[in-house]
Amino acid sequence: MADINTVATQFTDFYYTSFDRDRASLGPLYRPESMLTFEGTQHQGTSSIVEKLQSLPFQSVQHKVTTLDAQPSTNAGAIIVSVTGLLVVDGSENPLQFSQVFQLVPTGGTYFIFNDIFRLNYGA
Amino acid sequence: MADINTVATQFTDFYYTSFDRDRASLGPLYRPESMLTFEGTQHQGTSSIVEKLQSLPFQSVQHKVTTLDAQPSTNAGAIIVSVTGLLVVDGSENPLQFSQVFQLVPTGGTYFIFNDIFRLNYGA
Repeated sequence: MADINTVATQFTDFYYTSFDRDRASLGPLYRPESMLTFEGTQHQGTSSIVEKLQSLPFQSVQHKVTTLDAQPSTNAGAIIVSVTGLLVVDGSENPLQFSQVFQLVPTGGTYFIFNDIFRLNYGA
Repeated sequence: MADINTVATQFTDFYYTSFDRDRASLGPLYRPESMLTFEGTQHQGTSSIVEKLQSLPFQSVQHKVTTLDAQPSTNAGAIIVSVTGLLVVDGSENPLQFSQVFQLVPTGGTYFIFNDIFRLNYGA
């Protein structure tokens, strides 16, 4: 198995590229047991999560990863990924800071998202 | 078992109060298998983690939690906790934003920290 930093980098590259291009395409990364907490609202299961992501009120969005850290989780092969970065919404000149946490669980040579927690970070 | 938001709140209250008062007192929350990634540097095991926390170059520090989210992890009873907040270092008037992720694993009526990832968030 590839080392976890490589997996985390490949995953986040794929996730944010897909998110920024077509949020509906993220569906296959989730499962019925997957959880998303987005700005404090909770969603479980692929359809509920994709519906939430598609409902977000912006036309265009671009994620820029600033930091990416990964650690092995308790279950064999599962990975905790912590991301911080900037979100450029609708071409704004004032990017928003965000934090996002994933737990990736291996399945048949790839991974699905078990945990997903997203927060914007507002200044002091 | 208490609900996970209650556990996450009690844990973070205890963790940051202890951190801000006496970092050495955090040792019992970690185990030999615990991992800390602090600003990109990796540490494993209680003594290595506590040594890192004690070596941080500030006299006084205060954590102020802004957001706290929790989700059940894959293993029964384990919890993923995602925190964002502000760090007041040595009484500075310019608090730093931080993001921190924990995975808490139940053990004998309490929890220990399996994963711990800390990052400061710098502005755009």
